[in-house]
Amino acid sequence: MTAPVKTIEADISAVMRDIGQRARLAGRALALAPTTAKNNALHAMAQAIRANSAAILSANAQDIADARAAGATAAFLDRLTLDARRVEAMAAGVEAVAGLPDPVGAVMDAWTRPNGMTIERVRVPLGSIGVIYESRPNVTADAGSLCIKAGNAVVLRGGSDSFRSSRAIHAALAAGLADAGLPVDAIQLVQAEARVPVFAHLDGNCHVYVDGAADAEMAKTVVLNAKMRRTGVCGAAETLLVDRAAAPRLLAVLVTMLIDAGCEVRGDAATQAIDARVKAATEEDWATEYLDAIIAVKVVDGVDGAIRHIERHGSHHTDAIVTADRAAADKFMAEVDSAIVLHNASTQFADGGEFGFGAEIGIATGRLHARGPVGVEQLTTFKYRVHGSGQIRP
Amino acid sequence: MTAPVKTIEADISAVMRDIGQRARLAGRALALAPTTAKNNALHAMAQAIRANSAAILSANAQDIADARAAGATAAFLDRLTLDARRVEAMAAGVEAVAGLPDPVGAVMDAWTRPNGMTIERVRVPLGSIGVIYESRPNVTADAGSLCIKAGNAVVLRGGSDSFRSSRAIHAALAAGLADAGLPVDAIQLVQAEARVPVFAHLDGNCHVYVDGAADAEMAKTVVLNAKMRRTGVCGAAETLLVDRAAAPRLLAVLVTMLIDAGCEVRGDAATQAIDARVKAATEEDWATEYLDAIIAVKVVDGVDGAIRHIERHGSHHTDAIVTADRAAADKFMAEVDSAIVLHNASTQFADGGEFGFGAEIGIATGRLHARGPVGVEQLTTFKYRVHGSGQIRP
Repeated sequence: MTAPVKTIEADISAVMRDIGQRARLAGRALALAPTTAKNNALHAMAQAIRANSAAILSANAQDIADARAAGATAAFLDRLTLDARRVEAMAAGVEAVAGLPDPVGAVMDAWTRPNGMTIERVRVPLGSIGVIYESRPNVTADAGSLCIKAGNAVVLRGGSDSFRSSRAIHAALAAGLADAGLPVDAIQLVQAEARVPVFAHLDGNCHVYVDGAADAEMAKTVVLNAKMRRTGVCGAAETLLVDRAAAPRLLAVLVTMLIDAGCEVRGDAATQAIDARVKAATEEDWATEYLDAIIAVKVVDGVDGAIRHIERHGSHHTDAIVTADRAAADKFMAEVDSAIVLHNASTQFADGGEFGFGAEIGIATGRLHARGPVGVEQLTTFKYRVHGSGQIRP
Repeated sequence: MTAPVKTIEADISAVMRDIGQRARLAGRALALAPTTAKNNALHAMAQAIRANSAAILSANAQDIADARAAGATAAFLDRLTLDARRVEAMAAGVEAVAGLPDPVGAVMDAWTRPNGMTIERVRVPLGSIGVIYESRPNVTADAGSLCIKAGNAVVLRGGSDSFRSSRAIHAALAAGLADAGLPVDAIQLVQAEARVPVFAHLDGNCHVYVDGAADAEMAKTVVLNAKMRRTGVCGAAETLLVDRAAAPRLLAVLVTMLIDAGCEVRGDAATQAIDARVKAATEEDWATEYLDAIIAVKVVDGVDGAIRHIERHGSHHTDAIVTADRAAADKFMAEVDSAIVLHNASTQFADGGEFGFGAEIGIATGRLHARGPVGVEQLTTFKYRVHGSGQIRP
């Protein structure tokens, strides 16, 4: 790990220029690569991941030992840890990407103008993509394979704590590219910081709002799942908002249920009054993505109060309303400015697979280009193809 | 012009913060404004433009006088100049935007998951948009009206040379907003530099490649129109590439035709040998967007040579091939990485109106979000709306 990092630090801008140049060249080759070549590469990558499982797990064990020595939390170690089952899931994920339809070349739209020109809008790759991610080694395979399927070159920059794991996985991806005759520079792994245009920002400060007209059983089921199914995913609920009109009926039920399930509750004054085990929420809690078994709870004044709270503190990721009142649901879903808004369903559905997109890299919370799950189609752009017979513009 | 500019320079960051804050608030109101309110505002804007025609023309006359005194070129003055006909065209353009379908709220896609959840992808406004443009006063009305129709707030930053004209037009737009009960802050005009996310970059170094298999008459017609119909638009051809195989048959014909039409020709050695009036092209000429009656001409080795030249010098805007050979056309259109690629048609069709999009702000040459003509749909984003009946994720 020391040698390459030192080299990069010695002349970072030259190295980054070189990486960018190689990505651009590889990207041009990938853009024109036929579907079969890309799928052959993906199948070869999956095989290489399986064949190198021992090397990947050994690299991962070193990463884990270092992270543990550095005092990483249990949740962090869980995200970092690979085992035989997770390596197999990674290989299977790459094969699933091979099975997705190739978006490149798809005609998204076509029409004929009165002068006889035909215009087609055709999907083309984005080109070179930079993906920056936390210490989840599997993202190396997910992001690498999705970018290749969409005809792009990709520069991957994973968390430092997972560098050995990522490097071992990357070696398998590179072997797959070489096997299919595609340029290995199409997937590069770097440790240096890079400046790239960003459209995916993955903070998930997700809210569940329980409306006055919520069914009690549905509210309990949805809140428990949204918070506790997996606390470390970006679609996990971090704040529970309870309508003042529902509080007498539901606040105590929900808070007790969460505490009994092992969740720490940090509440406003009304919530603290319910149960002595509720800690006081500070202003910071409303904006915190815990990614842990902790939830902030607040009583708000109806759907308008919920919308105002989410507008002020949310991260435009995923927010849910539980209510039997369709008008309240419509208002919430129109006015909450998030990539995904749900009515009577758990925020944990914020996932490309659950949307039917196949694999995804993450949930984009920006507004330009991609919003919500970033799958293979969101990793493309388009061009206009115009066919004429000598038309000129009057 | 002096007073507001001085105020802005006194504390630019506070002013920009204030402008941004007001745009954000206005944007929220616009996002939820019904179609009728937006259309009422647009019709009132058009009426106000007509009613204030004299004031607009008088402000424009001052801008023109200053620009002329500062030694502006004829092409620059032409773009800056308004007259009664152009003011009427501007008002009619705003009315045409009122006539476009409202993109906001349109369900782009909808599907049901196996667990019964319905997912809809719904168009929503982008929010607050910054538009930076050259000294073409009409863009103030075009960009302002398109942004309003798409439910956005917009901050307009036009060229300094057209500031008085833009201010007079902006006053009419603000009157229209007020008339319809929409916040006037939805269209703000600033003179200060602003930092905004950019997805439209409008350099148009457009090429026409005349292939060995081109029909001579079609090549002449398309080249003349692409270069000379209007030289000041971004879709005007700036470089003519002639296949070495077509040169004996077509190079002299095309060069003579262009010179006879009043176009200055700057050529490579082969082109200079054709006609003593051809000047020597420098390396810089291949990358120059003249926006004037000047063209660079080069002989290249077939479609591959044309693709290489465009890849090296082009601006990813609009490029055309003239050929009767479908395979050459397909190769050109697949490999030239531009927003618009045309076969046997003039590059001057690079225009939202010609594509059937109604009005447009410009041609985006970036790859993210919008590419090609930026009309009302490209000024929106989307969100996912999910309806369930209590679904939780297993």
